[in-house]
Amino acid sequence: MMRQAGRYLPEYRAVREKSDFLTLCKTPELAAEVTIQPVDLVGVDAAIIFSDILVVPEAMGMELVVEEGKGGPQFPTPLANDADVAKLDTQGAADKLQYVYDALALTKKQLDGRVPLIGFAGAPWTLASYAIEGKGSKLYRKIKGLMYDQPGMLHDLLKALADVISVYLVRQVKQGGADIVQIFDSWGGVLSKDAFLEFSLPYMIQIIEHVKSETDVPVILFAKGVNTSYPELANSGADVVGLDWTVDIGEVRAQIGNHVALQGNIDPIALYSRPENIHNEVRGILESYGNHPGHIFNLGHGIDKDTPPEHAKSFIRSVKEMSEELYRTGEIEERKEWNATV
Amino acid sequence: MMRQAGRYLPEYRAVREKSDFLTLCKTPELAAEVTIQPVDLVGVDAAIIFSDILVVPEAMGMELVVEEGKGGPQFPTPLANDADVAKLDTQGAADKLQYVYDALALTKKQLDGRVPLIGFAGAPWTLASYAIEGKGSKLYRKIKGLMYDQPGMLHDLLKALADVISVYLVRQVKQGGADIVQIFDSWGGVLSKDAFLEFSLPYMIQIIEHVKSETDVPVILFAKGVNTSYPELANSGADVVGLDWTVDIGEVRAQIGNHVALQGNIDPIALYSRPENIHNEVRGILESYGNHPGHIFNLGHGIDKDTPPEHAKSFIRSVKEMSEELYRTGEIEERKEWNATV
Repeated sequence: MMRQAGRYLPEYRAVREKSDFLTLCKTPELAAEVTIQPVDLVGVDAAIIFSDILVVPEAMGMELVVEEGKGGPQFPTPLANDADVAKLDTQGAADKLQYVYDALALTKKQLDGRVPLIGFAGAPWTLASYAIEGKGSKLYRKIKGLMYDQPGMLHDLLKALADVISVYLVRQVKQGGADIVQIFDSWGGVLSKDAFLEFSLPYMIQIIEHVKSETDVPVILFAKGVNTSYPELANSGADVVGLDWTVDIGEVRAQIGNHVALQGNIDPIALYSRPENIHNEVRGILESYGNHPGHIFNLGHGIDKDTPPEHAKSFIRSVKEMSEELYRTGEIEERKEWNATV
Repeated sequence: MMRQAGRYLPEYRAVREKSDFLTLCKTPELAAEVTIQPVDLVGVDAAIIFSDILVVPEAMGMELVVEEGKGGPQFPTPLANDADVAKLDTQGAADKLQYVYDALALTKKQLDGRVPLIGFAGAPWTLASYAIEGKGSKLYRKIKGLMYDQPGMLHDLLKALADVISVYLVRQVKQGGADIVQIFDSWGGVLSKDAFLEFSLPYMIQIIEHVKSETDVPVILFAKGVNTSYPELANSGADVVGLDWTVDIGEVRAQIGNHVALQGNIDPIALYSRPENIHNEVRGILESYGNHPGHIFNLGHGIDKDTPPEHAKSFIRSVKEMSEELYRTGEIEERKEWNATV
């Protein structure tokens, strides 16, 4: 579950009470502790390292402020011009993120092979949006202003981010032992298709190619809200394409063929509903998906902070029970080769 | 342009200074004045009646509060249970909206045939979301809670809204003289495809069927963010399907065939950029659309409040000049039959 190590768990909140968000990200012992919580408590099949996508621009030299309840993380001094972009540290940034590799390595050791460990990074477009807007945005006026009127500056920034993220993900694998890495383009969905294909996807492809050239781990690509470019996402070189909850997963499978796995895609808000209704939603998605290879069941976005933990557990139980029932009755075939890869 | 009568125009702000938002909606002389402003000032090819989608739940008995700069319109007492839904006035609501028909009729008279006049209503799903959440929402937890756990109550509410909207739109045509009506589903995009097909689309189809049985005006259906259901939208009975800016209009045309017109779909934020770049964006959309019948050029969402009016004019000029250039050079054929209808 995306954002599975988080505020909906009382055990997470207990750790967070003793340290602020960024300290938690930067203290491997604490990050490992909360990363493993949902494995023990909720029964998920993989651990996702506890971290934040914005540590990358921070490592490149931007001041990052996270004050919970104050409208999300912020860069108080967003990038304003070419000189600001040129000043970003692309050479030393991956080194400054050593605490992430250490957190992964410690988590991996503590997991002791129970479940795979997923590393991640934000996509260049999403990180550039934060770096330019300074915070979450409704209209993305500043970065879209660059896109239309100063595309050169924006491309320079995206390239700098892609370079750093490429090294960052490889080191998550080589130093941290991540078994899979995921790229999150949280804000690609605010773009026209043309703009997505010019300003977001090529930089994700650059990262994927670098990860693939340096490691042998699968790559998951999740571009939330990008429901207009599945064929392009499926041909990005990623092994898995994540889907948000708005699309019918069976239709996407039919549209793109079987050469990548799909991840998704129950509406996270469904987890507030009664367990029998969660169960029905899970059934609907499994039935739509049908007997195709390569499905990682997941939410279509991060689990919400007030979700009852019992419901999260119930959701995981539903997925596991129903999958096994479908294997048993022969409605879907268990495919070892896909299980082995993703 | 969606929201073309609005805050980006100094002439609109001058009228608004003298009366609050709802008074403006409810005073036919003022509504007509601001409705006609963009026709005179910006050069658009149609007038859209100045109103608000939330006047419908208000006419059904809900208190509506619009305080600008305070996070948008609110229903301070949202619907909480079956009894609240049962209390809604479905019989008298369309009568209470007489001021809208009067505003349309006065606008029609003042336009004197210069351009067609568009009436509109919010979709049942979108209005239900406001009525249940009480205001704009990020997660739609309350209405999604109903959807999963009390679908009967939600269907009752959606049916009540669809009944009222059906009569409301017919009277916009018969009493107000609207030449076209548009249904806006601003929030259909937060739903899974299954949920959209159960809780939103059928009620819009009910409305379209009613309008079609009582009038001969074309119907435009715009479901913002619903990029997963173009074939279903194209088969809704609507004459025109509106597209937001995230999708490639040529790809949608190829997907659904030629039996409905398409409306859209430049990113409204592009109108902040330099006129030559707006021009390039317009060209990209016209080229993607190609030589198919039935294109209403429009924004992919409402014009933003700080858009420079000169840029809006420049956008309209670009669309007109480039369309005429394409006709002249024979790259697209002028189709009188479509022009006559939509």
